[in-house]
Amino acid sequence: MTTERYARGWDKLMEIDGEGGARVVDSLQDIAPDLGKYVVEFGFGDIYCREGLDSKQRQLITLSSLTTQGGCEPQLKVHINAALNVGLSPKEIIEALLHCIPYTGFPRVLNATFVAKEVFYGRKILQ
Amino acid sequence: MTTERYARGWDKLMEIDGEGGARVVDSLQDIAPDLGKYVVEFGFGDIYCREGLDSKQRQLITLSSLTTQGGCEPQLKVHINAALNVGLSPKEIIEALLHCIPYTGFPRVLNATFVAKEVFYGRKILQ
Amino acid sequence: MTTERYARGWDKLMEIDGEGGARVVDSLQDIAPDLGKYVVEFGFGDIYCREGLDSKQRQLITLSSLTTQGGCEPQLKVHINAALNVGLSPKEIIEALLHCIPYTGFPRVLNATFVAKEVFYGRKILQ
Amino acid sequence: MTTERYARGWDKLMEIDGEGGARVVDSLQDIAPDLGKYVVEFGFGDIYCREGLDSKQRQLITLSSLTTQGGCEPQLKVHINAALNVGLSPKEIIEALLHCIPYTGFPRVLNATFVAKEVFYGRKILQ
Amino acid sequence: MTTERYARGWDKLMEIDGEGGARVVDSLQDIAPDLGKYVVEFGFGDIYCREGLDSKQRQLITLSSLTTQGGCEPQLKVHINAALNVGLSPKEIIEALLHCIPYTGFPRVLNATFVAKEVFYGRKILQ
Amino acid sequence: MTTERYARGWDKLMEIDGEGGARVVDSLQDIAPDLGKYVVEFGFGDIYCREGLDSKQRQLITLSSLTTQGGCEPQLKVHINAALNVGLSPKEIIEALLHCIPYTGFPRVLNATFVAKEVFYGRKILQ
Repeated sequence: MTTERYARGWDKLMEIDGEGGARVVDSLQDIAPDLGKYVVEFGFGDIYCREGLDSKQRQLITLSSLTTQGGCEPQLKVHINAALNVGLSPKEIIEALLHCIPYTGFPRVLNATFVAKEVFYGRKILQ
Repeated sequence: MTTERYARGWDKLMEIDGEGGARVVDSLQDIAPDLGKYVVEFGFGDIYCREGLDSKQRQLITLSSLTTQGGCEPQLKVHINAALNVGLSPKEIIEALLHCIPYTGFPRVLNATFVAKEVFYGRKILQ
Repeated sequence: MTTERYARGWDKLMEIDGEGGARVVDSLQDIAPDLGKYVVEFGFGDIYCREGLDSKQRQLITLSSLTTQGGCEPQLKVHINAALNVGLSPKEIIEALLHCIPYTGFPRVLNATFVAKEVFYGRKILQ
Repeated sequence: MTTERYARGWDKLMEIDGEGGARVVDSLQDIAPDLGKYVVEFGFGDIYCREGLDSKQRQLITLSSLTTQGGCEPQLKVHINAALNVGLSPKEIIEALLHCIPYTGFPRVLNATFVAKEVFYGRKILQ
Repeated sequence: MTTERYARGWDKLMEIDGEGGARVVDSLQDIAPDLGKYVVEFGFGDIYCREGLDSKQRQLITLSSLTTQGGCEPQLKVHINAALNVGLSPKEIIEALLHCIPYTGFPRVLNATFVAKEVFYGRKILQ
Repeated sequence: MTTERYARGWDKLMEIDGEGGARVVDSLQDIAPDLGKYVVEFGFGDIYCREGLDSKQRQLITLSSLTTQGGCEPQLKVHINAALNVGLSPKEIIEALLHCIPYTGFPRVLNATFVAKEVFYGRKILQ
């Protein structure tokens, strides 16, 4: 049964993350389908659908959180793509990562930057 | 000797953090003055003075990084004040914290929110 | 408007955390009421109401997560109380903390243990 | 010289982690044999041999700690296998990971879940 | 029964941490005496008694680990005292903290520095 | 334009990290050249050029910080090489990692040790 929160969240997930997000949810079907359901319902249906911040602002916050906690390279890949999808420029994305240096140090920012490099080459922003 | 980077950083620090930032730098004079110097020169003179993101965007990223890493309540206090100083509304600040829930969980967001509560009462935004 | 998830979550919150949990939700009313709503709806209505693990198992997992991430002393206080509420013995709680030593080191376990000490004295388990 | 703590720890390691644990200790022989010794003596001989919690409870705590701290995918692989070895069902293991969402957020739980998926396929629990 | 490892660890603890370390072990007697025992036996009897690094080197490593993980202010207080006890100068201690900036960022280093300030005033190194 | 800080930092980077460090800076040229510039200017020109600790002491502190925060395996690889470059023995490097066990637990130390193993085999210290 698809709840209203799920439907709303799925639309938002497709708008923000696109295929990358759908692939994560799909890959959970055989192991933990409810995890995918919560990502959609709570993460996107509840949180991402809130008012008060636009999609670009939300991606800046997301990139900072994922960069700072470390070990989230797969999620950074999805959300650097998402940041581009919602209209942040490659330059703004790199700026967001550099802004984290004083707070979280160079190693985490280097790790995130190399994920961005991979995404940018994959999308032919760099070639 | 005051370098150009220090002067530029100090102006930026005063613009963003105001008294709260100056107090941190002052409180380092007897124990580690160079730490204050690096906060000013590198943190503010180099990073905060970069182009590509405006002051509001930079504070959203900062709040997310400090909330996510945890144990940074003193720095959150300074930067929630800074967020207000650069024109983010109390509502936008709370939104930024709530947006971190799916990435970092409730405890870190609760801790940050209680710092925001203290700042908002201190500035009579709440009373 | 109270959703079914909220009502179910509130009952679960009262059963598990009791007054300590209610106080957290209350203290959010003036600053971020939706944060309290999500704690109740998602944390308790969705996650804590799942089948497959009983309340004691869930508190063991919670204590481990809060001990390991560090900086969550206020949440540990609530959940050490919760652990007692659901029937874990003081000895089992301390065992759970000690079991984390090889994974997260002594400092985080020491910090959690001193929270347990405070809770146990508050409830006259130690005196 | 094999101490009594080492012998007791080795037996416990074999009982809990089985081959996966032995492989870790073996792989340390040429680089840091004392690290393997401490894992066995302290981790298993001291901590895992304590009374007060059974093996299933200890694995729930372990999974939560490793999931929460992040970057511990190799250790999660060993301990998801261990969790199965001591009799936790695949469903209970996934429940334990999902229970961590409110505390540590989605990214760390997603990373742990994909390790579980790999282990479950390797053991033909999923196919 | 006092083991040889405990006796050796206690002597080392007294040599390194002095009263601050003893107070931690004492304060665990009513809540988790085995936690104190493991700190002494494993932390000091096994690890601190190893050859290959001297006491000053070990304190530099300790300060870096505690600064980096954050939320370990009580342990930093003990080990900044310990660093002084084994002969590191106040300047070397501050240098060690500053060296962590590029790796872990300013907030954690600021938190550690304010602990050092408190210790230095307490010992009248600063006045 | 090469600043004096950059030139000084580059010399220090070459002295400490050698080729591994240069490769990191090079790999940033197409994606975030200023990140490389800050590593050189601030990390090496400012911090590593400070007096008060020698190069061996600085590498011990670095290894501890990178081991403790986790998820920094690429940076650990560079800095275990750097530790050898400045004259720390393989034994001292392993000792530094083992000293972190009581503070950060086994998983992070195991991860760092396996990076050391790879570096030591690459440099034929182990074969």
